[in-house]
Amino acid sequence: MKTSNHELEEIFPKGQKGPSDFFTGNAFNIGLVQVDSIYTTAVGNVYFEPGARSNWHTHPSGQILIITDGKGYHQIEGQPIQVIKKGDVVKCPPNVRHWHGASPEVGLQQLYIVPNTENGIVDWQESVTDEQYSIK
Amino acid sequence: MKTSNHELEEIFPKGQKGPSDFFTGNAFNIGLVQVDSIYTTAVGNVYFEPGARSNWHTHPSGQILIITDGKGYHQIEGQPIQVIKKGDVVKCPPNVRHWHGASPEVGLQQLYIVPNTENGIVDWQESVTDEQYSIK
Repeated sequence: MKTSNHELEEIFPKGQKGPSDFFTGNAFNIGLVQVDSIYTTAVGNVYFEPGARSNWHTHPSGQILIITDGKGYHQIEGQPIQVIKKGDVVKCPPNVRHWHGASPEVGLQQLYIVPNTENGIVDWQESVTDEQYSIK
Repeated sequence: MKTSNHELEEIFPKGQKGPSDFFTGNAFNIGLVQVDSIYTTAVGNVYFEPGARSNWHTHPSGQILIITDGKGYHQIEGQPIQVIKKGDVVKCPPNVRHWHGASPEVGLQQLYIVPNTENGIVDWQESVTDEQYSIK
């Protein structure tokens, strides 16, 4: 089986392509829960095509990722890249730099949960280089 | 096609059967994010077999449900039953009575997000009667 032929389950509409200022490659975002003062939580889905990834970024109150299909990478600065796949749940603490995206061969479907949005949502930083993206 | 033969996508392990004090029928819960003081958010998945539903209950800071497969019902007290299906996202405000579960013929896979858990998580109440469960 060629993993490149893996067809991912689509639960949500694909949404809009993320801007190249914040993403390398093709990543599509759809918001599912908009920020408000009642739930103080932002929720959405990102589909990363193979090879696509976010820039480095931080969240003032951290972030929870729930992987619903495919295979990808998550890296907290200073730690090894974590391989993430369908069914995995990973967290990044407040104000800690991280990035996430698809593996080179298989895309990634991931829900994100940003809690306590009264503190802010995201601080976008520089892109993830090809060298940073390659697992040694 | 008989809807009763619909096979649901399983993203997460099935988890433990919910107690009959809180659920009618067979509902299985797996915790994905445990409550802590950093993320102040509880996340998990419930699989409701056809006909299964929660009791009436409230959440001190509300709840967000994300339906990943199947078909079910959500009812906020005093409002009509909402039919919910794959890709739907519904919310219940703080301290408002609601229940959720599968349809009679097709099960339901649903993620739940409970925000601001420093205020508490859930207050379980009485079961949903067969009459309340039937859509007229």
